Amino acid sequence: MSDPTTAPRPTLEAVAARAGVSRATVSRVVNGGDGVREPLVERVRQAVEELGYVPNQAARSLVTRRHDAVAVVIAEPETRVFTDPFFALQLRGISKELTLHDCQLVLLLTEGRDDHARVGRYLAGGHVDGALVFSLHLDDPLPGLIRGAGVPTVFGGRPCWADGSRGTAPTVYVDSDNRGGAREAVRHLASLGRTRIAHIAGVLDQTSAVDRLDGYRDVMLDADPRLIVEADFTPAGGERAMRELLGRFPDLDAVFAANDLMAAGALRVLRAVGRRVPEDVALIGFDDMLPVAEQTDPPLTTVRQDIEQMGRLMARLLLRGLERRGGEAAGTPGGTPSSVVLPTTLVRRASA
Amino acid sequence: MSDPTTAPRPTLEAVAARAGVSRATVSRVVNGGDGVREPLVERVRQAVEELGYVPNQAARSLVTRRHDAVAVVIAEPETRVFTDPFFALQLRGISKELTLHDCQLVLLLTEGRDDHARVGRYLAGGHVDGALVFSLHLDDPLPGLIRGAGVPTVFGGRPCWADGSRGTAPTVYVDSDNRGGAREAVRHLASLGRTRIAHIAGVLDQTSAVDRLDGYRDVMLDADPRLIVEADFTPAGGERAMRELLGRFPDLDAVFAANDLMAAGALRVLRAVGRRVPEDVALIGFDDMLPVAEQTDPPLTTVRQDIEQMGRLMARLLLRGLERRGGEAAGTPGGTPSSVVLPTTLVRRASA
Repeated sequence: MSDPTTAPRPTLEAVAARAGVSRATVSRVVNGGDGVREPLVERVRQAVEELGYVPNQAARSLVTRRHDAVAVVIAEPETRVFTDPFFALQLRGISKELTLHDCQLVLLLTEGRDDHARVGRYLAGGHVDGALVFSLHLDDPLPGLIRGAGVPTVFGGRPCWADGSRGTAPTVYVDSDNRGGAREAVRHLASLGRTRIAHIAGVLDQTSAVDRLDGYRDVMLDADPRLIVEADFTPAGGERAMRELLGRFPDLDAVFAANDLMAAGALRVLRAVGRRVPEDVALIGFDDMLPVAEQTDPPLTTVRQDIEQMGRLMARLLLRGLERRGGEAAGTPGGTPSSVVLPTTLVRRASA
Repeated sequence: MSDPTTAPRPTLEAVAARAGVSRATVSRVVNGGDGVREPLVERVRQAVEELGYVPNQAARSLVTRRHDAVAVVIAEPETRVFTDPFFALQLRGISKELTLHDCQLVLLLTEGRDDHARVGRYLAGGHVDGALVFSLHLDDPLPGLIRGAGVPTVFGGRPCWADGSRGTAPTVYVDSDNRGGAREAVRHLASLGRTRIAHIAGVLDQTSAVDRLDGYRDVMLDADPRLIVEADFTPAGGERAMRELLGRFPDLDAVFAANDLMAAGALRVLRAVGRRVPEDVALIGFDDMLPVAEQTDPPLTTVRQDIEQMGRLMARLLLRGLERRGGEAAGTPGGTPSSVVLPTTLVRRASA
């Protein structure tokens, strides 16, 4: 055995010479062997072994798919992850894409924010090649912990700092055009002749909720701010907000809710107080969450975002980023994948 | 450096002598350092390094809570994990218990059985201290892969080999008294004067389904075997089975379904064909899955098992086992935790 404290460290070039292949081939093999023919892979592996070659620290940290595992972190308590179908849909997309690449989905569940330090420790512990993180909240310690863990990360939903306020490493995220979708919904309500259009907002410490509110405001320039009630993306929250709004504006004639679950809650309240939808009050949701949006009575007009596709894209961007990092380590040109903002579509059903 | 192929392997005793501490202290440091003062930890670490001490394979596998993480593996595709509330409930119990011990829940999701080899690799990769495995099927490769991975494991539901047919390491599991619960349900139907009692069984490659069928047979000794239809624990499966049974026995007067989701499906079919429940057909489910069991019309009489508690117990048994293994490694007496079978209760609502 060579003594690492005295013997000169074998170089990539030495391995290439020993194996009779190019430097790039050695690099590719060391980084996972993609696209290298099996006999060459074998020769390189043998040379690596004979020389006791160890990739240097920087290169090692760039070696891709060491664990063939990707962590998914949802910044919500376990109970919400399993009751809001949004997360199941996003996970479905992620699971399909990771499985396609034989990469293990490692879902890190928590009871709440107090557990995020532990999630950070697990991420830093070298158990995964990268992380997919979604449902971030404004004052969440998670982003800092993830940066500290040093794992490549793709975010679901635009993180609040991605507007350019923090001058850190480029943030890669997948988002929907929340503001544009909200604008289209409210414009549609206005086109129906509705004038007292209320908005049930999501939790405003999330950019998706803020962007949808901004889209509402883009159209309702002079609206009474009391037409806006913040809720929490749950059906119960939608019910409470709807009661609050009816108390403030008994004559309101339209509601745009920031997701379908809250719209479903609002619908129950409207029905309970005898308002017909859409005749008395037109109602639009957001997500096109099935079966929720189709099974309400009347079925919901809503802004469709492709949640499963968002999950797939997150996984794809992360895996591509890992490959490129590997490519960079191997001396081939790479680049950071860019964020993606998916378009939304207004789906007209019976509620507006 | 010592050459492991020729030099005698340094012992724990040699490390203790070099560090000037007791054997137990070395063991504690090697197993995580709990309760050892920092200067002693440092001395032991130095001695370990100088002698090139490597804990032997058996002792290493006994090192406790190295990662403060426990894997959860559900032998079902991701889609089922997120649509059957049974899994969410069991995960809730597991999550609460692990969080209480500041231990990270690592949920390994798959698209299906083809991915179990990858799960096995992850478990063997040294990323978790132990595993909680549930919803095993008879011909599942998972148990073999888990044994191969060598991680301490607690099973949810009795694995088929735990009856003593395989002479391997003792299997620790948490289960409900499925057979006893089923017996109580069918006895209750008989006590109502019902004589043509059918059974909608779960997938019979799972012990929970087999045990509930056995409980039915315990009471219905001479029943026509055509009164039994195997389904798949889903509402749609319950519907299909109910139609099948009504085709075979138009005069049946009671049904025991092996879970609430199938009972809910059966109820829809009974209503669609104009049978009154419980007047014409008495119906009993299994699980007491809320809100399913309470929201059917009429609400379901069912056999309650405490699913969340099963999850908590699984986690508790695993953590206790890890602690004891640590104790054994440190020379203190330990023992293997025993399996637990929880009692069930018949919850009477309106359907029987």
